[in-house]
Amino acid sequence: MQTDNLLKQVNFIKEIDKLKYIQRKTKLFNSDRNENDAEHSWHLAMMAIVLAEHSNRSIDLLKVLKMVLIHDIVEIDAGDTFIYDTVKNHKNTDEELVAARRIFGMLPKEQAEDLIAIWQEFEEGVTDEAKFARSMDRFEPLLQNVSNNGGTWKEFNVPYQKVYEKKQVIEKGAASIWEYAEQLLNESVNNGILLKNTD
Amino acid sequence: MQTDNLLKQVNFIKEIDKLKYIQRKTKLFNSDRNENDAEHSWHLAMMAIVLAEHSNRSIDLLKVLKMVLIHDIVEIDAGDTFIYDTVKNHKNTDEELVAARRIFGMLPKEQAEDLIAIWQEFEEGVTDEAKFARSMDRFEPLLQNVSNNGGTWKEFNVPYQKVYEKKQVIEKGAASIWEYAEQLLNESVNNGILLKNTD
Repeated sequence: MQTDNLLKQVNFIKEIDKLKYIQRKTKLFNSDRNENDAEHSWHLAMMAIVLAEHSNRSIDLLKVLKMVLIHDIVEIDAGDTFIYDTVKNHKNTDEELVAARRIFGMLPKEQAEDLIAIWQEFEEGVTDEAKFARSMDRFEPLLQNVSNNGGTWKEFNVPYQKVYEKKQVIEKGAASIWEYAEQLLNESVNNGILLKNTD
Repeated sequence: MQTDNLLKQVNFIKEIDKLKYIQRKTKLFNSDRNENDAEHSWHLAMMAIVLAEHSNRSIDLLKVLKMVLIHDIVEIDAGDTFIYDTVKNHKNTDEELVAARRIFGMLPKEQAEDLIAIWQEFEEGVTDEAKFARSMDRFEPLLQNVSNNGGTWKEFNVPYQKVYEKKQVIEKGAASIWEYAEQLLNESVNNGILLKNTD
């Protein structure tokens, strides 16, 4: 049984190597090199470890780490959805659910169910752990875009209002980080790297 | 105080982005693209999550995750040391300790001390968590080399005996994984992708 499990787990470990090829729109800090999903997931995990004290509510850090480490694995099948995409809505997760079932389904049954549940909890964003994990996921690209003179905001002409709306999710997980993030957004407007829509 | 901490933590978060540029000798699975340290660290964290049941002893998974996520951060300053390097001995960690103090030292004091201690615990390899974390660190490149027809073993003419000696560390953390790894090494010899030294 333990050997059966191990073979399944090793196949899963090989499969998720593909996450290293999924390119995000966002670039590394002060860089023009795109970040990939594995690097992004590692960075969120490190952020969760060092920023945990800022969570609005006391959290189970182990669960948060599992969330951020696995949250993009579905993109191996479903691809990266750009947060400011106007056509493909990230909330349409049917395709991602199929992907979660296939990929996590390579693991022993109980483990697969456990990880699918954690991924769904992250997607739903209701629990304290999910709120904090999601605030990490929104905060990292904000820092990256600021370091890259506007980054994807400039590249895809995303106005301040839309960025603000998406980033506000940070507040649900960590009000003090949101306060800082809001400040960065205002500075970005002042520096002309994020434009206010004047329609 | 919380804002003071946040600013230090954000600087640390930006600094460790550099881990994404540290190239390892090992290649991704079935690939000729080198793995970088951030991708490697993410993969070890995922392995620790799915393979925890194989640990010889009951472990604090949160601590293991912290270990594998941070274990290579010192390489931002000290560079990657190839495990089969005959000149630079990995056990010479003076340079790495200086690096740990500089990089983790960017964080608030207590947090810096905590992460340096966790990194040292990993390096020493004495506790159950360190043993399991280290077994992950040895198991991933073994799987990669097998998938790459010998990978770095072939590229750098590393004989079976030396590989076996380095990989035996897996047994200390997870005997059942070692049993499987030993089998892979024997198959690799039989398939001619790992050569026995006949001196």
